[in-house]
Amino acid sequence: MIQEPQQFASDNYAGICPAAWAAMDEANRGYVPAYGEDPWTQRASDSFRSLFETDCEVFFAFNGTAANSLALAALCQSYHSVICSSSAHVETDECGAPEFFSNGSKLLVAQTEGGKLTPEAVRALATGRSDIHFPKPRAVTITQPTETGQVYSLEEIRALSATCRELGLRLHMDGARFANACAALGCSPADMTWRSGVDVLCFGGTKNGMAAGEAILFFDHVLAIDFDYRCKQAGQLASKMRFLAAPWVGMLESGVWLSNAAHGNECARQLATAIADLPGIEPMFPVEANAVFLRAPEAVLEGLRARGWRFYTFIGGGARFMFAWDADLSRVDALARDLRAAVTEANRGETLAA
Amino acid sequence: MIQEPQQFASDNYAGICPAAWAAMDEANRGYVPAYGEDPWTQRASDSFRSLFETDCEVFFAFNGTAANSLALAALCQSYHSVICSSSAHVETDECGAPEFFSNGSKLLVAQTEGGKLTPEAVRALATGRSDIHFPKPRAVTITQPTETGQVYSLEEIRALSATCRELGLRLHMDGARFANACAALGCSPADMTWRSGVDVLCFGGTKNGMAAGEAILFFDHVLAIDFDYRCKQAGQLASKMRFLAAPWVGMLESGVWLSNAAHGNECARQLATAIADLPGIEPMFPVEANAVFLRAPEAVLEGLRARGWRFYTFIGGGARFMFAWDADLSRVDALARDLRAAVTEANRGETLAA
Amino acid sequence: MIQEPQQFASDNYAGICPAAWAAMDEANRGYVPAYGEDPWTQRASDSFRSLFETDCEVFFAFNGTAANSLALAALCQSYHSVICSSSAHVETDECGAPEFFSNGSKLLVAQTEGGKLTPEAVRALATGRSDIHFPKPRAVTITQPTETGQVYSLEEIRALSATCRELGLRLHMDGARFANACAALGCSPADMTWRSGVDVLCFGGTKNGMAAGEAILFFDHVLAIDFDYRCKQAGQLASKMRFLAAPWVGMLESGVWLSNAAHGNECARQLATAIADLPGIEPMFPVEANAVFLRAPEAVLEGLRARGWRFYTFIGGGARFMFAWDADLSRVDALARDLRAAVTEANRGETLAA
Amino acid sequence: MIQEPQQFASDNYAGICPAAWAAMDEANRGYVPAYGEDPWTQRASDSFRSLFETDCEVFFAFNGTAANSLALAALCQSYHSVICSSSAHVETDECGAPEFFSNGSKLLVAQTEGGKLTPEAVRALATGRSDIHFPKPRAVTITQPTETGQVYSLEEIRALSATCRELGLRLHMDGARFANACAALGCSPADMTWRSGVDVLCFGGTKNGMAAGEAILFFDHVLAIDFDYRCKQAGQLASKMRFLAAPWVGMLESGVWLSNAAHGNECARQLATAIADLPGIEPMFPVEANAVFLRAPEAVLEGLRARGWRFYTFIGGGARFMFAWDADLSRVDALARDLRAAVTEANRGETLAA
Repeated sequence: MIQEPQQFASDNYAGICPAAWAAMDEANRGYVPAYGEDPWTQRASDSFRSLFETDCEVFFAFNGTAANSLALAALCQSYHSVICSSSAHVETDECGAPEFFSNGSKLLVAQTEGGKLTPEAVRALATGRSDIHFPKPRAVTITQPTETGQVYSLEEIRALSATCRELGLRLHMDGARFANACAALGCSPADMTWRSGVDVLCFGGTKNGMAAGEAILFFDHVLAIDFDYRCKQAGQLASKMRFLAAPWVGMLESGVWLSNAAHGNECARQLATAIADLPGIEPMFPVEANAVFLRAPEAVLEGLRARGWRFYTFIGGGARFMFAWDADLSRVDALARDLRAAVTEANRGETLAA
Repeated sequence: MIQEPQQFASDNYAGICPAAWAAMDEANRGYVPAYGEDPWTQRASDSFRSLFETDCEVFFAFNGTAANSLALAALCQSYHSVICSSSAHVETDECGAPEFFSNGSKLLVAQTEGGKLTPEAVRALATGRSDIHFPKPRAVTITQPTETGQVYSLEEIRALSATCRELGLRLHMDGARFANACAALGCSPADMTWRSGVDVLCFGGTKNGMAAGEAILFFDHVLAIDFDYRCKQAGQLASKMRFLAAPWVGMLESGVWLSNAAHGNECARQLATAIADLPGIEPMFPVEANAVFLRAPEAVLEGLRARGWRFYTFIGGGARFMFAWDADLSRVDALARDLRAAVTEANRGETLAA
Repeated sequence: MIQEPQQFASDNYAGICPAAWAAMDEANRGYVPAYGEDPWTQRASDSFRSLFETDCEVFFAFNGTAANSLALAALCQSYHSVICSSSAHVETDECGAPEFFSNGSKLLVAQTEGGKLTPEAVRALATGRSDIHFPKPRAVTITQPTETGQVYSLEEIRALSATCRELGLRLHMDGARFANACAALGCSPADMTWRSGVDVLCFGGTKNGMAAGEAILFFDHVLAIDFDYRCKQAGQLASKMRFLAAPWVGMLESGVWLSNAAHGNECARQLATAIADLPGIEPMFPVEANAVFLRAPEAVLEGLRARGWRFYTFIGGGARFMFAWDADLSRVDALARDLRAAVTEANRGETLAA
Repeated sequence: MIQEPQQFASDNYAGICPAAWAAMDEANRGYVPAYGEDPWTQRASDSFRSLFETDCEVFFAFNGTAANSLALAALCQSYHSVICSSSAHVETDECGAPEFFSNGSKLLVAQTEGGKLTPEAVRALATGRSDIHFPKPRAVTITQPTETGQVYSLEEIRALSATCRELGLRLHMDGARFANACAALGCSPADMTWRSGVDVLCFGGTKNGMAAGEAILFFDHVLAIDFDYRCKQAGQLASKMRFLAAPWVGMLESGVWLSNAAHGNECARQLATAIADLPGIEPMFPVEANAVFLRAPEAVLEGLRARGWRFYTFIGGGARFMFAWDADLSRVDALARDLRAAVTEANRGETLAA
């Protein structure tokens, strides 16, 4: 089996972390009832309730696209709309899944700086139209941290939720990298969510170190009514649910969910620090979680590629580096060195050309 | 962690088989691209093509509900209909998923003996209405083996597909336990599918010994156009796809997919044989795969329950015993003994009452 | 322009009645705002509220398929189900529209006598399954009068609604020929609906004498929240709404809605009476509204066809005669005479053959 | 019945033109089969085929939202996308209907000048993404004339369709005011559609002088397969279809479809001419069809309102005047005079304030 050298193109390229793996191994013993009637599912759900310090409703889905779409569909009818940022994953990378699961709810896209929604942007979209010829705004979704690696502060979340409450909107948090946000702010999951007015959270397990799986947490019980039917109908109920639940037990009970995320964040900071003095290279967004987006001359990016590095440039042409739970710090250093070399080389080329 | 004693209520109660587990373990090394651009996904797809002796299109979904629904949605528009048996899983146990994924395609249900569709039943439903006030029949789905543990012979499949061709219908096979059917008939997967006129197969991995995952095989390339988009939009594209693909590699390359199934079938036969002489107890359906449905007096069923056995009675009131890839033959014997004891006890009770 | 001789195949074959026409004519003066902001729409809505003696919410849709489907979609989510009779129009003649508008809500079909649902049938379907693998029952729909021309008594409706309340189900009434039911029972629209526990009524205008249009009446305001958006998104908001509303004004204010229906009912009774003594000919269902379904030997039906009569036989092979608001009583007599002649002829043929 | 004084806020405020009315009146005689099996529907379809000089497939829907959405749904699957202008009615005023009917197809919105799509804009959106995480572009929709009253030239349409062909996209034309475009260009309907590469046209009857109704014309027969089922399921099949079809006969056979439109266009030109010299007032878009969008100081708009004029300002804050088939030319003059007076008054106010 050919393996890729470790890259930082995506935190989806990493495998399963030891804590998740060990829990799956332990879960793989004996017979247990299917479809979530097993002790692992109960235990994982209780772990979430314990971690979030509240009696929330917990559901499991196979991936983030489904989790987000199901959660939004539970907040909306087809003729409602969802306010999101122009860089929101639901808008840019889910192939119309929110529209599909909701049978047509439109996404209203705010063009905001760096992917962060603001109360002003929400208000503008929510109040721009109030006639029946346009889908009625019903929910707001924010990604925490954003797709650009920024973290909403608690104050920002509270300001957004206050605006939502005022305007009759529900607040959904896409937490594909929720753990990274918690590690970044050092706050409790409860503070970041229901205590700040979040109604529903999709807590990502895959990027956090699992094989697959996201948890959907409803902090308002009414919103969760019949949500189990919704998951089942949408092909998101695992028969051998224990294997979706056990990794959560392994990660939540051990605290690995947080240490994994903290490590990814550290790698990002380390890269940012190592290249802070490089001329012509600058972060496109504040480095607050496990991502670094670099704006760099094309010649520099070419130099990086020539040195074997792979990365995406789909956001504003910048090079994205995304650090997984097991990113190798020495490889982060290697990346910084290669970047420095590429800059030098590019500058030399420019000098020669001049 | 409390564990259930081994039961035969469902083959979903079993865990992950060693071959699947070992492949996941091996796959859990290093970094690989996400979303199926990894070598494991390629290798699993090639394994299917090799096993089926044809260049079919291969896709992976998380579970059977999604696999069936996506496949049927690819065959139909919302105003089309799908012909199925009254005991078909798509009709009875998927919570309206086929209707949801297809945005409304109606299931036309044939009331047939033992869950098997026949050419006559298909023809009757397909030609009963031809006006635009009723959804136009466009596909037929059969479950192989059926939900009642019966296996369509190759002749039966061919007869169905011939009728489908004649009537302009596509033929879908729900193979949640496809391997059990192959083991039962001793025929090749190719013979059971495309060589017999099947257009699309959903090949079940979960019941075959995996943690999760079904493969969708299109034998007609045209039907698979843009199916990758369909999976993505419907929340069925795994980011760490290697963990959905690797178990298939482990099971297909080793032949375990077949031996697992053969073992389940053997358990069913052993139970059937062991109780063949029991008065008042009879199989509701021919025992051909890994299921035994027993019709028995309620007192006997009660006696079994009192002895700690759990089982479902949702089909016709009979007790269903479903044998997984790792069913313990000594426990099968124990079940047979307990059943015999329950019969004796029930008869004694009856004698006393008389 | 070739015109058909008056037939009784369907009450959709008739045109627009004078009251509806005159109102459209009067409405066709001057400029009025679009999309229901006009005085005619207000007046039609008020007429309904007056007629039904309650402050219900009133909406207008273009046809019955849309009205029923939108109403049911407002009661259900995609993973819910709707209980109906096996002869319900929503099941047999709307091409999967309820499933389409609701994005997948399944219809649970009760096989009942003559198309009438009973509390027992509702209870059996509503309580048969309570697991998440089957769509959760959420609404019941009855057709008043039924597709077979029978009328639910107030007692029957109340018994159904009591069962619905007990089981947490909403009650929808498909009133494609609602006026005929009112005329048959001689009761008030209020008694037949909200006073008997009906939550939503689709009141048919087309068969009652209009060009097109059905009214959807919600007696529970909560169910009507955002229903205007639902109609708009589903392509059921008329821009020149006055032409959908005015005919209702014309018919409701004048009482023609009721007299039109009473006339159709009278025609049916007259036919039934005229042929009561005919040997071998019998009504399949009690003749209570504007339909007569006759069971007759095929030779007799052939004799009728030979005499130029057209009729449908899609329900149980019986000949359906459906009388419109303007059915010609002399033609009803002619039909009775031709039927008598056909019977005589058929008997003669039989005698000859014997 | 209170009537509005004639306004130019919308061409939906007008009534039914005499040609349409007379045809409905004539159609309202005798009995004819329902659901389009009547002679009027046949004749209307043939009239379209004659007018368009081709054997196209013709369907009728109740309104433009439905017609557009059904047509686009026929071109797309849920995971496909549709390219449109930012001012396209499907994007701004159909409450998510295209997404609803297609079960999720996303609209990709081009920000273009004055609502016109260009080959460059189409290409940019169609080729911007080619991964499965974003809906695959499959169709382009243009509004002819645009929502801003501009008309695509034949050259522009041909350039767009050439780009579509090259990129594998289908071309849909939203012709809510199609007749106005024909009148403006003086070209044949055939030249403006299929001869220029349009695949599907929605030809608006409501704004053209009918009570309701749009025709959907497929120039490629393959795209129309089973479209009748689609219409039926979506609640767009009229039972008394003759009343949807007859007005088309009345308007197409007489040529009124074109003269009605020409009159609306003339009114727009007359207004534009009459105010051409007014300081501070200018058309926001070239006046090519029956709309005039005026950019004017708020004080002037207030002055107009004070004089009893109603108009919308939802596009760019400009005042929209839209002229119906029966717009009164003397009222157009009155509007021009009032506008002139409002300007004078506003200027005087300004002078005083200065």
